[in-house]
Amino acid sequence: MEKNCMEQRAPEKIDGEKINLEKINIGGNAFLLPQPQVLVGAMLGDRANFQAVAWVSRVNMTPPYMAVALGDHATRDGVVASGEFSINIPSVDLVAETDLMGLVSGRQVDKSAFFEVFYGSLSKAPLIRQCPVAMECRVVKTVELPADLIFIGEVVGTWTEERYLTNGMPDILKVRPFVLSMPDNAYWAVGEKVGKAWHDGLPLRERLTSLL
Amino acid sequence: MEKNCMEQRAPEKIDGEKINLEKINIGGNAFLLPQPQVLVGAMLGDRANFQAVAWVSRVNMTPPYMAVALGDHATRDGVVASGEFSINIPSVDLVAETDLMGLVSGRQVDKSAFFEVFYGSLSKAPLIRQCPVAMECRVVKTVELPADLIFIGEVVGTWTEERYLTNGMPDILKVRPFVLSMPDNAYWAVGEKVGKAWHDGLPLRERLTSLL
Repeated sequence: MEKNCMEQRAPEKIDGEKINLEKINIGGNAFLLPQPQVLVGAMLGDRANFQAVAWVSRVNMTPPYMAVALGDHATRDGVVASGEFSINIPSVDLVAETDLMGLVSGRQVDKSAFFEVFYGSLSKAPLIRQCPVAMECRVVKTVELPADLIFIGEVVGTWTEERYLTNGMPDILKVRPFVLSMPDNAYWAVGEKVGKAWHDGLPLRERLTSLL
Repeated sequence: MEKNCMEQRAPEKIDGEKINLEKINIGGNAFLLPQPQVLVGAMLGDRANFQAVAWVSRVNMTPPYMAVALGDHATRDGVVASGEFSINIPSVDLVAETDLMGLVSGRQVDKSAFFEVFYGSLSKAPLIRQCPVAMECRVVKTVELPADLIFIGEVVGTWTEERYLTNGMPDILKVRPFVLSMPDNAYWAVGEKVGKAWHDGLPLRERLTSLL
């Protein structure tokens, strides 16, 4: 734990009458969980390379943009050089294969033949046939942070198969993606359905006060 | 589906001898799944406000940065004005409450009394007592995209309770977060453990060719 992350009790005055003495501060490095586990693909010259990444998110509605944050690794070099990358979503059947892509560096091993690779419309965004969903992205913005680069890419194509779709869109029960928790470093399947979004909160609406 | 998202077969020449005729392109708007569901907090003047957000990711290792992408909503106005925000991780017990925060706008209703609110070291990053984990963030960079703003914040504190920790860090089995899938708009619990990260891939290492 960092030096400035010593446990710290919440002040008693907080929240008016409420006293939350049970709350403790564990510092900045607690991570967010659960993180979606993907494989980011890029070209190292003519060679396809893949890296296990869980720092990934949709970031813009229209046009559709995805963001990935990459540290100082071979894949990052490839994205910088080509301006293209892929985001491949593995199923739980590919846990070990995905994990391996985070254990070894494309600077030291050739990963290009490990998966079956295909391409959509971008020549520098290698896609993995074994992954149920694979997006090809063109970099529209790069954000420099102290340790990582965030690549923001427009999704120019999403490749999948009929067997993973319901009503024309990927079905999470068919794709069977998994998530990563840190710092315990475990992979987890998606579990039971616990609610319907933009729906289940409606009955609670009367608890809020209208400002209008 | 967008006009440029008509289904499209992969070209036959891809991947050398491999022909992936089963792959189809469903366009750019397939989303990534599963997305971690959180509540982003900000102040609207003196009033705490919260928004349901699933476009969130860790983006830098040291210092610890988190990124959230927000559309044109009250919460975004609050973050722009104050330079601070919170990321609150709800448990599955809070599905309906979380969902409500995505159904109604802080421009139309007062959400400040819906949860019990407390503060850490930042006065403009309202934290939710009912959420097992709550991070307070100071904006270090804002990225403008066509529809959304990405706020990159340094995590200056993570507030939790002893009962959610194992070895001093949040335990996903105790926090019980949930994820959002789109476009089916469903919430899902975290399921069974399917692997150990930075570990399970080791036995497959011999399948790769060393470059050294």
